[in-house]
Amino acid sequence: MADHAKDKCGVFGVWGPDDSGWRAYRALYAQQHRGQESAGIATTDGRVLRAHVGMGLVPQVFSNGEIDELGGRASIGHNRYSTTGSPMSCNAQPLMEEYGGGIQVAVGHNGNLINADLLRNGFEQRGHIFHTTTDTEIIIHLLATHHAKGNLDPVVESLHHLQGAYSVVFLFKDRIEAARDPWGWKPLVLGKTRDGFDCVASETVALDALGATFVREVEPGEIVTLSDEGLSTRRFIDAQQPAHCIFEHIYFANPSSVLFGDTVQLVRERLGEKLAEESPADADYVMPMPDSGRSAALGYARRSQIELREGIVPNRYAGRTFILPDQADRDDKVQLKLNVVAEVVRGKRLIIVDDSIVRGTTTRAKMDQLRRAGAKEIHLRISCPPIRHGCYFGIDFPDKSKLLATGRETDEIAKFLNVDSMAYLSLEGMLECVSRPSDHYCTACFSGQYRLNVDKPVSKLGLEKNQPPLF
Amino acid sequence: MADHAKDKCGVFGVWGPDDSGWRAYRALYAQQHRGQESAGIATTDGRVLRAHVGMGLVPQVFSNGEIDELGGRASIGHNRYSTTGSPMSCNAQPLMEEYGGGIQVAVGHNGNLINADLLRNGFEQRGHIFHTTTDTEIIIHLLATHHAKGNLDPVVESLHHLQGAYSVVFLFKDRIEAARDPWGWKPLVLGKTRDGFDCVASETVALDALGATFVREVEPGEIVTLSDEGLSTRRFIDAQQPAHCIFEHIYFANPSSVLFGDTVQLVRERLGEKLAEESPADADYVMPMPDSGRSAALGYARRSQIELREGIVPNRYAGRTFILPDQADRDDKVQLKLNVVAEVVRGKRLIIVDDSIVRGTTTRAKMDQLRRAGAKEIHLRISCPPIRHGCYFGIDFPDKSKLLATGRETDEIAKFLNVDSMAYLSLEGMLECVSRPSDHYCTACFSGQYRLNVDKPVSKLGLEKNQPPLF
Amino acid sequence: MADHAKDKCGVFGVWGPDDSGWRAYRALYAQQHRGQESAGIATTDGRVLRAHVGMGLVPQVFSNGEIDELGGRASIGHNRYSTTGSPMSCNAQPLMEEYGGGIQVAVGHNGNLINADLLRNGFEQRGHIFHTTTDTEIIIHLLATHHAKGNLDPVVESLHHLQGAYSVVFLFKDRIEAARDPWGWKPLVLGKTRDGFDCVASETVALDALGATFVREVEPGEIVTLSDEGLSTRRFIDAQQPAHCIFEHIYFANPSSVLFGDTVQLVRERLGEKLAEESPADADYVMPMPDSGRSAALGYARRSQIELREGIVPNRYAGRTFILPDQADRDDKVQLKLNVVAEVVRGKRLIIVDDSIVRGTTTRAKMDQLRRAGAKEIHLRISCPPIRHGCYFGIDFPDKSKLLATGRETDEIAKFLNVDSMAYLSLEGMLECVSRPSDHYCTACFSGQYRLNVDKPVSKLGLEKNQPPLF
Amino acid sequence: MADHAKDKCGVFGVWGPDDSGWRAYRALYAQQHRGQESAGIATTDGRVLRAHVGMGLVPQVFSNGEIDELGGRASIGHNRYSTTGSPMSCNAQPLMEEYGGGIQVAVGHNGNLINADLLRNGFEQRGHIFHTTTDTEIIIHLLATHHAKGNLDPVVESLHHLQGAYSVVFLFKDRIEAARDPWGWKPLVLGKTRDGFDCVASETVALDALGATFVREVEPGEIVTLSDEGLSTRRFIDAQQPAHCIFEHIYFANPSSVLFGDTVQLVRERLGEKLAEESPADADYVMPMPDSGRSAALGYARRSQIELREGIVPNRYAGRTFILPDQADRDDKVQLKLNVVAEVVRGKRLIIVDDSIVRGTTTRAKMDQLRRAGAKEIHLRISCPPIRHGCYFGIDFPDKSKLLATGRETDEIAKFLNVDSMAYLSLEGMLECVSRPSDHYCTACFSGQYRLNVDKPVSKLGLEKNQPPLF
Repeated sequence: MADHAKDKCGVFGVWGPDDSGWRAYRALYAQQHRGQESAGIATTDGRVLRAHVGMGLVPQVFSNGEIDELGGRASIGHNRYSTTGSPMSCNAQPLMEEYGGGIQVAVGHNGNLINADLLRNGFEQRGHIFHTTTDTEIIIHLLATHHAKGNLDPVVESLHHLQGAYSVVFLFKDRIEAARDPWGWKPLVLGKTRDGFDCVASETVALDALGATFVREVEPGEIVTLSDEGLSTRRFIDAQQPAHCIFEHIYFANPSSVLFGDTVQLVRERLGEKLAEESPADADYVMPMPDSGRSAALGYARRSQIELREGIVPNRYAGRTFILPDQADRDDKVQLKLNVVAEVVRGKRLIIVDDSIVRGTTTRAKMDQLRRAGAKEIHLRISCPPIRHGCYFGIDFPDKSKLLATGRETDEIAKFLNVDSMAYLSLEGMLECVSRPSDHYCTACFSGQYRLNVDKPVSKLGLEKNQPPLF
Repeated sequence: MADHAKDKCGVFGVWGPDDSGWRAYRALYAQQHRGQESAGIATTDGRVLRAHVGMGLVPQVFSNGEIDELGGRASIGHNRYSTTGSPMSCNAQPLMEEYGGGIQVAVGHNGNLINADLLRNGFEQRGHIFHTTTDTEIIIHLLATHHAKGNLDPVVESLHHLQGAYSVVFLFKDRIEAARDPWGWKPLVLGKTRDGFDCVASETVALDALGATFVREVEPGEIVTLSDEGLSTRRFIDAQQPAHCIFEHIYFANPSSVLFGDTVQLVRERLGEKLAEESPADADYVMPMPDSGRSAALGYARRSQIELREGIVPNRYAGRTFILPDQADRDDKVQLKLNVVAEVVRGKRLIIVDDSIVRGTTTRAKMDQLRRAGAKEIHLRISCPPIRHGCYFGIDFPDKSKLLATGRETDEIAKFLNVDSMAYLSLEGMLECVSRPSDHYCTACFSGQYRLNVDKPVSKLGLEKNQPPLF
Repeated sequence: MADHAKDKCGVFGVWGPDDSGWRAYRALYAQQHRGQESAGIATTDGRVLRAHVGMGLVPQVFSNGEIDELGGRASIGHNRYSTTGSPMSCNAQPLMEEYGGGIQVAVGHNGNLINADLLRNGFEQRGHIFHTTTDTEIIIHLLATHHAKGNLDPVVESLHHLQGAYSVVFLFKDRIEAARDPWGWKPLVLGKTRDGFDCVASETVALDALGATFVREVEPGEIVTLSDEGLSTRRFIDAQQPAHCIFEHIYFANPSSVLFGDTVQLVRERLGEKLAEESPADADYVMPMPDSGRSAALGYARRSQIELREGIVPNRYAGRTFILPDQADRDDKVQLKLNVVAEVVRGKRLIIVDDSIVRGTTTRAKMDQLRRAGAKEIHLRISCPPIRHGCYFGIDFPDKSKLLATGRETDEIAKFLNVDSMAYLSLEGMLECVSRPSDHYCTACFSGQYRLNVDKPVSKLGLEKNQPPLF
Repeated sequence: MADHAKDKCGVFGVWGPDDSGWRAYRALYAQQHRGQESAGIATTDGRVLRAHVGMGLVPQVFSNGEIDELGGRASIGHNRYSTTGSPMSCNAQPLMEEYGGGIQVAVGHNGNLINADLLRNGFEQRGHIFHTTTDTEIIIHLLATHHAKGNLDPVVESLHHLQGAYSVVFLFKDRIEAARDPWGWKPLVLGKTRDGFDCVASETVALDALGATFVREVEPGEIVTLSDEGLSTRRFIDAQQPAHCIFEHIYFANPSSVLFGDTVQLVRERLGEKLAEESPADADYVMPMPDSGRSAALGYARRSQIELREGIVPNRYAGRTFILPDQADRDDKVQLKLNVVAEVVRGKRLIIVDDSIVRGTTTRAKMDQLRRAGAKEIHLRISCPPIRHGCYFGIDFPDKSKLLATGRETDEIAKFLNVDSMAYLSLEGMLECVSRPSDHYCTACFSGQYRLNVDKPVSKLGLEKNQPPLF
């Protein structure tokens, strides 16, 4: 199947507490921004695994006593944002399966494998059956196969086959194993609760929600094991040159999280400051596009010494899906999602700060709305470079052809958006705002430089393509 | 997993009509008595398969336009009655899977395989994963494996592995294949609609509901293929000595169906006549236990020349699940399901005719209810022999230990049920009421004589156990 | 509003037990045949009333702990079968309202008032507002008004205004009042539970379901009061010449109920016997149309000495609503509801016995189905006279113009139905089958003789129309 | 009934367009902040009214084609936020009733009547029945009664009885009538759509969402009529001294709305500026409590010249209801709703700006959370005076005894909240931030000065209590 789900997701795991399901519930709630399509929790009581997954937000999925029914002393959880056309309940995670004559496992995965098709085809040629379109199911087939072959550490053996971005949690009846890909694409952090239980999560905001302490990142290429024996760790592969997803800082992560060594909120403020340095404008006000542009606007205003004003009011209920009649166009929808404070913008020269632009169609409608409310000049400032390339590592962008910036220069874009001036932050400027060396980040969506050869995936790390059979 | 579902189910398939989903809907509706837990339909439009399955009765599962959404020019359908403790939506059928790089198949199955554990374990030892507990999934693994091995006729190759009872329909994008096990345990019939389309169904009552003609039974060991090329047939194995499930005649099938060469209604009347010959009683009235004992009571009254009276009125809405407070006992429930016409039974000597007794607890409550209404004598007559043995071929009986007749003589049973006399039909008497030779029926639940060695299943027909690997 | 609901309904009330809600649940369950559209229970704990009503069958309406939430030591309940086009939840009963500064009352009603429009208009002219279309709401307006006027016994005063058929139960915080119209149109019986609590119900079958004893009928024109003080009774008006609804015996009531002094099942058997006497036929078999014609067929066979055979099998799941595609016609639906045992009817001369015919369209389809199955002759026998007139007292018949027998002689009807002969039971013959004097029954739907002047309703008993204001 | 619902609600009406239901949908969506408990729309096609109301947010209530089913060329809509313990579907609005023999009306109401009990009791003493607990139903009883009395303008006559706050829309089959109480408590504005249709709404933000122009406020004591004859107006009573609800500006209204002559966003910024003047503090950062304190914080920072920083991040999904296990306390819930950016607040002296404090318990938890994250000093600033008195005019505050500021001085409150200093804005300071004369606003919740005698309501304006009968 050609359209593997490319997920932005969140994972979590905790070992030990009697209310482990409730801990997962809180963590998923705090990580809700990483995926709103489905949620799921799997637990173990030491003998048997139980899982409940469903479509919708965390409180919707767990509204009828499911958590108490799950019970258990350890749990993993998963938030999912799917990009496939038709969200299917059977693709929700954690995915719980059985193999090898009664070994239960539940798996939650954040990221995207570039060799998923290759692996899946290899399995299908051996008579295996797939009933979801997730990378997660491929990982379980690897587990089952390496178990069947008698390998002593099927988890390690399985991970050797995965090429791409993944932060993955496995729940077995007697342990959690949490692994991060050798490039560290996606975040994965280790925490300890006030009452002493080990936990892992995609973001530190989940630890905060539990009142847990942030211990450290799980290292690229590391597996940590949580069990009654406590915490243990092993490397399954040498770490590679890191490729942290910079877009987590730009847009995706929670502002209060500490990610790849930086607090997200502060990175975003610095992006705004840098943007003000690179692309100043003569204007009356700096105005954030809420809520995503707020941190960068604060930085821009601080550096530019131009007054920060709020003139665009988001409809706090607009996040929910809503219907409009057939004749409604995009302008209508934008108008329902944002309200402009006419008296603030009327006759003013505005610097509008937003975090990023993908397709640009919504942005165009927003600019029109500001014009109709009387804005005299609009200077649009974007706190990252133009997005011109697809992501194969877990962020879902539309086809290149639908990206606003693909094949368009900035002045064309300004014309299209009907703004008086526009500027993106430079790639270099952006990288100056984060602490780690520039080559430790994946910037492929901006630069087109992919860390892995996405056109020639391999079925096992260290092998070339057209290699001998899978195992 | 130890508790494979042992289903009483119904299957159906039709090739050709533009409203194939609606035809399946009607057929499933007519076969609803074969399974009320879940229902499902899969269709093909020649290029892609679509399926909708759900928990509940046919009209509940297809109440929101699902059939029109399915579309398609061919369909298969499935009614399911599960015996597993927790009915799970993921076990509903038809089961639709993909294998071999894009081959879609949907499968519906009626019966029970005795070598399911053996086959499943074999697959698990090869690294395969299972996500349901159905025999159906095992069949698809066989298909996928034989396809991967390059076998020219994977359906035939797969069926060679199945040991037990099955009437199974496969839907591929370009054809339906319908197969019946070599012993003919479960019914499977071929029909032709008024507008000339070929169809298969578990019972002729489904053909009647479509206004279709009953053409013939699918033979034991036969595969019929329905496609745009019309109907074709092939044997996949030599037919064995038949083992038709006699319990279909006793209780399970629709009275209007023609099954294994006999009309069910007439068989049941003959059972009642034979019962009157074997076990007469001096009484005022013959009275059926509705609705299951009605046909046999008619035969009993006809032969005994004792007046038939109706004195027990079923609550027509009691089939639905209903709740009662904790303190309610079985008597309470029976009282809500049956009403006794006191004026009819008061002071009378009654011959109560029923089709069979399984656990006997409900029967006991019914007898008590008749006593309370004033019945003077109760002579209970059962139109089949005592059920003393489990079924491994698709009828779900409780554990032997919970069968009323296991380890109890008839007079003990009469005492337990608080009746003045009771009698079962003899095994020989029962077999005289059906047309085919006595050894063409499976009577294992009565006799304990199993046609196959249920303790030593094989992984492929013709092989002994502890045989070499599966393929 | 022109289309007041004309209900066939069931009512119930019990005073005293701590599980009074569960008692109502059982009673409604046993009376489910009196109304399947909605169900409701109201309870009191001595201080406050609580109610839960909903659309659907009793077990569907009370499936989520509602009964335990209701609590209370007394309850009334209601089954409703509505005839309005669009069943509305707000019309479900018991209807609970408040008036007079905090007096709560819940009311359930079976029957139909012929002066409902007159009363409602009178209220509307005084500025009252109605939010349902039920007679029940009118009754509560009467209560509230007589209370406001300071009348000492508002219940009695209110009932004086009601003209038509009603068996009504009122629940106040400290008592149940149950009243039956002065003509005794609808049944209402008094019972006592095994543990000594008083109860009222529409039919004795509800008493049986509770294990309660049938004490006596509530008399026409009587109010019985159930409270902590025990049972008391008073007349609110002189009883009129009775007008018991004979159609309850023909079709509507449960066969096991004792109604207007007769057991329903025995009445129906006598109707069949009388029919055999009046309209014999030369045939091979007597065959009931299940399930409604079964009792009469038994009587017909007994008297005619022609063999009773079962050849028409109802689909036990067909009572549920189901959808069919647009192109489906009535024949299709009938075919899904009934299956014919072809081998029984083929080449035979059949006497088909049914209880009544309303529109006749379904009957026509059934006869066609028998013909297609090979019946040689069909002699249709109906165990009541032709229905040619509307009912204004609680049975919902379609417009006169849609009644099969309106303006058609029996031979025309036979031709329309495509039967070889047909006969109805005579009015006199029918009345010979019940115990009370012939003029104690309402036979208006057959004879057109209405006990009350349905064209000139009055706003208070004893007044002529165009009378002075309501109060 | 003692606990009349005191609603914060929104109303809307539009006359003329073929898609009037969709216009109402958008307007309600834009006014969702005025009520999230239920929503409803009623339409007319000139002959008959139709309504759909339901519990939940606008997109949830209208998710299944209800709007297209409503049809119609004119509509009114209602958002409701109920304060009653148990939200009941029957209290949702618009309330549609029928009176006077077929006159349909639908009514939506924002505000609260102080003479509701008096009016309701008067009606009940006349035998009227109520089935909701809303003021709206009382208004319809008035309409029905004045119609029955033959009054020529029942709407005007009815409004003469209403004492309190109300902005109310009536939908009749041939017109909309929209009225505002003589004191102008609640907002109500008149607009015109781009295609020329007249409309009314609670807030201008609803006009913006429709692309409609804000024409003017509906005057206190004015009725505007929208119909095919265009717009007309009449006064039903002399306007009183205005009593605009100042709390709409403080908290309730949308920042982009123009309300009582001021843009809300600008009022809030001025409140923050004034607060900085009155209660400065020596600190590192001004930090808004999101989202309610953001505008005032902007003003405070601007005036104080202290840097504005964002350090508290709301969980954008926390608005939805969610469950927590029993042992969870308020701190847990706050922690899930807000995340603190530890690196920003650690070691800093913070001025936290919020709009208001009601109970204070949540505020306390938030302050604790900032402390745990390392804040060195917390100076809490509230942009309105202490709330110490109940509101009888449509804003729901808890019992006086539960208001944080009742009976507590500011330093006690600071201690309770565990902050280093705290200050409220003064009453005078607050009133300087709005444009109209100070005595044109209702400030009763702060001052305890009620414009009307809430203890002695009258049944008709101009009458004293213990007056003669209602009409």
